Amino acid sequence: MKVLVLGGDGFCGWPTSLHLSDIGHDVIVVDNLSRRAIDLELEVESLTPIRPMGERVAVWKELTGKEIGFVNLDLAKEYDRFEQLLRTERPDAIVHFGEQRAAPYSMRSSAAKRYTVDNNVSGTHNVLAAVVATGLDIALVHLGTMGVYGYGWSGSAPIPEGYLTVKVPTPDGDLEREILHPANPGSVYHMTKTLDQLLFAFYAKNDKLRITDLHQGIVWGTQTPQTALDERLINRFDYDGDYGTVLNRFLMQAAIGHPLTVHGTGGQTRAFIHIRDTVRCIQIALENPPVAGEQVKVFNQVTETYRVRNLANLISSLTGVEVANLPNPRQEAAENDLNVEREQFVKLGLNPTLLSDGLLEESRDVAQKYRDRADTSKIIARSTWRQGMETSPDLVTK
Amino acid sequence: MKVLVLGGDGFCGWPTSLHLSDIGHDVIVVDNLSRRAIDLELEVESLTPIRPMGERVAVWKELTGKEIGFVNLDLAKEYDRFEQLLRTERPDAIVHFGEQRAAPYSMRSSAAKRYTVDNNVSGTHNVLAAVVATGLDIALVHLGTMGVYGYGWSGSAPIPEGYLTVKVPTPDGDLEREILHPANPGSVYHMTKTLDQLLFAFYAKNDKLRITDLHQGIVWGTQTPQTALDERLINRFDYDGDYGTVLNRFLMQAAIGHPLTVHGTGGQTRAFIHIRDTVRCIQIALENPPVAGEQVKVFNQVTETYRVRNLANLISSLTGVEVANLPNPRQEAAENDLNVEREQFVKLGLNPTLLSDGLLEESRDVAQKYRDRADTSKIIARSTWRQGMETSPDLVTK
Repeated sequence: MKVLVLGGDGFCGWPTSLHLSDIGHDVIVVDNLSRRAIDLELEVESLTPIRPMGERVAVWKELTGKEIGFVNLDLAKEYDRFEQLLRTERPDAIVHFGEQRAAPYSMRSSAAKRYTVDNNVSGTHNVLAAVVATGLDIALVHLGTMGVYGYGWSGSAPIPEGYLTVKVPTPDGDLEREILHPANPGSVYHMTKTLDQLLFAFYAKNDKLRITDLHQGIVWGTQTPQTALDERLINRFDYDGDYGTVLNRFLMQAAIGHPLTVHGTGGQTRAFIHIRDTVRCIQIALENPPVAGEQVKVFNQVTETYRVRNLANLISSLTGVEVANLPNPRQEAAENDLNVEREQFVKLGLNPTLLSDGLLEESRDVAQKYRDRADTSKIIARSTWRQGMETSPDLVTK
Repeated sequence: MKVLVLGGDGFCGWPTSLHLSDIGHDVIVVDNLSRRAIDLELEVESLTPIRPMGERVAVWKELTGKEIGFVNLDLAKEYDRFEQLLRTERPDAIVHFGEQRAAPYSMRSSAAKRYTVDNNVSGTHNVLAAVVATGLDIALVHLGTMGVYGYGWSGSAPIPEGYLTVKVPTPDGDLEREILHPANPGSVYHMTKTLDQLLFAFYAKNDKLRITDLHQGIVWGTQTPQTALDERLINRFDYDGDYGTVLNRFLMQAAIGHPLTVHGTGGQTRAFIHIRDTVRCIQIALENPPVAGEQVKVFNQVTETYRVRNLANLISSLTGVEVANLPNPRQEAAENDLNVEREQFVKLGLNPTLLSDGLLEESRDVAQKYRDRADTSKIIARSTWRQGMETSPDLVTK
């Protein structure tokens, strides 16, 4: 099938584009390179030496003979070009990663909050409006986040895959109703994904669009079989305080001998998924779209849950690097349990990659290989959820 | 207190600004005149001859000695000017009417859908981000809509004021939880108000902003004691298929001898409020803000519910004008009951203005007086919820 990958230059988007191309789909990446532009703004770079999109797709063609298209386009600001692209390309499906995706970045300033909301909401709504305007039957797969649910909301009940069955008291007795799980986002970034859910619900109802929303956990790992084919195809590895995700950060910190940065108590339990499973989940979602008129299909795209301090202790015991307990720049619960339903992907064939599978080493090796590219002044998380919250100074100065 | 009225040039905003000024508040209207610009786009005018803002505030000062400020500013596009305005004026409160407010307009084209989402979401989020950035303690009162709830969702249970108590089944038995009432918007416009709710919930939680969200019914009537003081202060009266609201449209149609336009079965039950009560409700909300750290305070701002065909039959029996049953351009339930909790405002002193109070005549008189300004080609509702839905031709041609 023909698939547009919106945000196909990013950490999840690039390996997904390669995977979909590898299994025979006709892939076109749509990306305005905003993620690279934010690296410039933050004065940081991927630990891995990622190549320009032109080189990436040229190398992919050289190695495999497969073509990946690339359109440099801002979804939030270039609606007319996007609608025209749909009319010209007539894709069967769209995979939508094209949103600002870092919670800390979304909280660092008024400008970053506004950029995150304006970019994510307008971009996503433009995609929906364009699909309706063209009248094309295009299935949409969108990357949400586990963060839409909040943490620990419903006691011992596991977080369901999107929809929650509740009883509503009425004068005639309790009514059972299935509702979208109540939203409890922890940052402006997470909030935008809760807004997206309402956009999707409306367009699925009013226009019968076929939409799948994937509530993904924290992604770890770096390479997929395709990105590992050639160094010029290498995936991003973010380690900075805004864009780096917790497990990859620990692996990188261990590789350079930096104390493992636990912000807050480390009692936060979060859901995780390896990048290799991300790309498989996208494939499965594309192969199992809802039918027109059905409600939005929601999957929890996670394979394991871990408490942050347990991850830190695990990496510490494997590497001998100490754990540093730092002030938490976020406003979040100090401790939470997390029990997540995640049966759907397994039933559809996902064979999860677990921490215990030894893939920790793969990421550590990547981090080792490129350790000299690290800037230790970018490691501490300092984007605070409110003005005036305490942050840590640098722990290591070169 | 000093109050900024965002959207203070509009149908609800202008009488609210006059009312708040009249009772002694220091009022500054912030408006980009977008409502007047949309009239130009739709090639329609208010039935009443509204005057420019400069003249409006000059007449108010001439008659009462009270000054109302006016700042022409686009909330969605001029964030920096808005933040600076807050720093300069240091208001105690903001009343936020500054959103595109017509469901049919929000559905008429891809461009209108996108304008409604971009304008409403970015504008509202800019207000929140600016309040946080300034660190000022400003209470925010926002106009929501009864349409956030959808219609007929919970059987015989009345629609609560914002929050619904539900039971969540867990392995340890049912947990009782108070949740924001699930959203079920019927148009892109209504959807934006459901997005606003999530913005408010997040900023109330993370930044302890003090926010009140008023879920208003369909407003009818034209004048308040202040707008009636002088013809140059007159309020808008919209009668066109996009912006006109059902009861005022019936009154205007009766005044010009046009059949009363019931789109669909007329079995839709909706909530209503007179414009005189709108301004009183805003005053009450301003006088009863939440405290910092409290959740968003939600009121249902409605006084009566009526079924559309019953309203049409009532006006028909009073005036002898026939009822015309026309195709429905909306996708909505043909028939619904509506039972709405609305005790809070009454407890705080609202004495509702009811249809039976004879105020129907006031609006009919306004419609009679300006009947020659009507353009009968603008009466039929033709903004369809999906492409290809049937609409009616004009019933009367001049």
